[in-house]
Amino acid sequence: MATKVTPISGFQEWLPADRIAELIVLDTIREVFELHGFASINTRAMETVDRLSGQGEDADKEIYGVRRLAADDTSETTLGLHFDMTVPFARYVLENAGKLTFPFRRYQIQPAWRGERPQRGRYREFIQADIDIIDIGALPDHYEAELLLVVADVFSRLPVGDYRIHVNDRKICEGFYRGLGIEDVTGTLRIVDKLDKIGADGVRKLLLEAGCSDEQADQCLALAEISTADTGFVQEVRALGVSHELLDEGLAKLSAIVEVANEHAPGVVVADLRIARGLDYYTGTVYETMLERDPGYGSVCSGGRYDALATDGKRTFPGVGISIGVSRLLGLLISEEGLTASRETPAAVLVAVNDEDSRGDSMRVASALRARGIPTLVAPKAAKFGKQIQFADRRGIPFVWFTGADGHQVKDLRSGDQVAADAASWTPPEADLHPSLVLPTSGE
Amino acid sequence: MATKVTPISGFQEWLPADRIAELIVLDTIREVFELHGFASINTRAMETVDRLSGQGEDADKEIYGVRRLAADDTSETTLGLHFDMTVPFARYVLENAGKLTFPFRRYQIQPAWRGERPQRGRYREFIQADIDIIDIGALPDHYEAELLLVVADVFSRLPVGDYRIHVNDRKICEGFYRGLGIEDVTGTLRIVDKLDKIGADGVRKLLLEAGCSDEQADQCLALAEISTADTGFVQEVRALGVSHELLDEGLAKLSAIVEVANEHAPGVVVADLRIARGLDYYTGTVYETMLERDPGYGSVCSGGRYDALATDGKRTFPGVGISIGVSRLLGLLISEEGLTASRETPAAVLVAVNDEDSRGDSMRVASALRARGIPTLVAPKAAKFGKQIQFADRRGIPFVWFTGADGHQVKDLRSGDQVAADAASWTPPEADLHPSLVLPTSGE
Repeated sequence: MATKVTPISGFQEWLPADRIAELIVLDTIREVFELHGFASINTRAMETVDRLSGQGEDADKEIYGVRRLAADDTSETTLGLHFDMTVPFARYVLENAGKLTFPFRRYQIQPAWRGERPQRGRYREFIQADIDIIDIGALPDHYEAELLLVVADVFSRLPVGDYRIHVNDRKICEGFYRGLGIEDVTGTLRIVDKLDKIGADGVRKLLLEAGCSDEQADQCLALAEISTADTGFVQEVRALGVSHELLDEGLAKLSAIVEVANEHAPGVVVADLRIARGLDYYTGTVYETMLERDPGYGSVCSGGRYDALATDGKRTFPGVGISIGVSRLLGLLISEEGLTASRETPAAVLVAVNDEDSRGDSMRVASALRARGIPTLVAPKAAKFGKQIQFADRRGIPFVWFTGADGHQVKDLRSGDQVAADAASWTPPEADLHPSLVLPTSGE
Repeated sequence: MATKVTPISGFQEWLPADRIAELIVLDTIREVFELHGFASINTRAMETVDRLSGQGEDADKEIYGVRRLAADDTSETTLGLHFDMTVPFARYVLENAGKLTFPFRRYQIQPAWRGERPQRGRYREFIQADIDIIDIGALPDHYEAELLLVVADVFSRLPVGDYRIHVNDRKICEGFYRGLGIEDVTGTLRIVDKLDKIGADGVRKLLLEAGCSDEQADQCLALAEISTADTGFVQEVRALGVSHELLDEGLAKLSAIVEVANEHAPGVVVADLRIARGLDYYTGTVYETMLERDPGYGSVCSGGRYDALATDGKRTFPGVGISIGVSRLLGLLISEEGLTASRETPAAVLVAVNDEDSRGDSMRVASALRARGIPTLVAPKAAKFGKQIQFADRRGIPFVWFTGADGHQVKDLRSGDQVAADAASWTPPEADLHPSLVLPTSGE
């Protein structure tokens, strides 16, 4: 057994208090997903490489292949770790189509893996929390607005600060490009998607290299610069003088989404015509979510509509999905900003032990408290009470319970108050029962 | 994108209702672990192969290696997927020793992977729910009994039926073998561990091949046949006439565990001297748990004490842990016996839609219900009410909500009762709020 531990970069592992903060965030996300009627599924970590590959420019080279170390021939199916939840979900739908009830709404909260260079907000292993709605043949448009409202509900319960969900419809870009006479829509989208990274001049240069005229390049950039919190974007696009029926369709759809979002969750959505998303499977609406205090951190919640990701040749299962990048979000909130939990253990009470012979008495007190839902620990050693209190204090356990011939007492370590208590009835204040999120104090 | 889906054997994926059953089981396990004061940690899926290998006879060849498909040289660290939670936990403790508070109690509920041949109860990807307590230098013995009581608490809340936790102490075997003059303790343990698979004659043959005398082989088999629900095993071992100080130590420790277990959870534990566990890192107590109705299914909860798994060269971190094989357990309960959930969606209510123009009204009703913790869906289409009711019925959603000019009404689909209701105050019966486990009806 190796005794030296070499940390591996790109993997997010938390100490216990921070892990509790992560769990509170994950539980909140799950709770909201379930409130909105999404059913959980869990897919295996591995897909065939065949299914994973070909989803976008950079995706292939980031796939982790998986192979038994002892594999003695090359005939085994080539497997890889999934890099998102959408591709596995589409496969799950195809595999189980006959047994699912459509439209099928599912959430999926799992790790995914990408072998990319670790950097701020990007990890090689990361948790994503996805919701998708998938149907057979046709998918009602209103789901594309609904997903935004679910995200708004999640974020209203998390300490994420101000944020905006930026929405676009690829049909707008495609119709606009086609209206301009550009034929390589995907290539153009990919170039425009680099706007944040390389700026307008860089994009312009790449567009010209790709064969655009000066005017086409200028128009593509002009479209990408349109961003409005209401449906004003329609008029701004019209003013550019390009027309195509796909463009009309896209503008109508995006307008409807912005209107519904602004009615049910005012101030959350921005129509932003530069949003493209790298993955090739998106065909309509695309989403990205930026935190207002740090837009450069990248999107913490992204997704879109895909019409052809899942097809068995006869039937097509169009879907729309959005994914909260939990690890990225927590990289900012926990690692950088210091969000944590109020204690490093679920235990609300430590039962002290008078001597090893009476450990059984302390265990019975703990059982009685646990039976009423109070997380409880028994002290590891019958040490001096001062030591046992220190054990609780170090972990943030708020209460210490003393058994004794004169009756039981419970001490609140914060106030120092110690009162008589009965394990059959005593209950800690609701706020102390479970650990809670602790926001970093500004100015500390 | 491949359209053909080829299922991969050895991976457990559930349909939505069964997944909800799995979640209820996972939530129950987590709740009990937290009631007993275990803190969650989550480790990355990958460890260095160096750390994973060398843990037991079969473990190495089952490891899944992980490598970027695009890896262009062989200089990358060789990584593999973890095959249990104990090895990653030991590494986590070494990596974070300076920041953890000892004795450190953690739980870890994650998938693990083994590239073994899939068979009944054995999967290539499987969820394990582990608890471990680890300390610096020395670990109090009472933790070895405590873990059994946590498992008993978990199993008392799950529909697992009758079960027994079989406990042994490797010191008993080691002391006994050494007392007999056998030097290859690990090799002998491995052979005796095959008793269930190949029977007494098979074990006897292997022991003789390994160099045991007839008498040594008979004595090893006699020891392995001792099994008592109380401390009677001590006398039975003594009657075999072997003595060694490690044997004395093991017998004393196992007696203490059986006594504490029988006091706090009567009828759960059996001292069973044939239990060995394949993994080499165990050094003391070992546990295996069999379901009474199908002992041949294999252990659904196993673990043991390890004294030297985690060491940084200067300090040693002895630990004891036990792991519930959630996937194996659910392979029996869900796949074979038909355990499932009362519905295939978290939604308790479907809000009907009168026409697409009034979808916003239905959405506001849903928001009001969700705000009070009631999982709610809005109908996908303003179809005829019969169709909308069918949508709910197919998914097992118990209530349908109708908005209308004359006031709102809610219909219980099981009784057919329809009553006036206010979204600001109506609440479903507690039993309908969330899906629950549904046991298969015997005789169906």
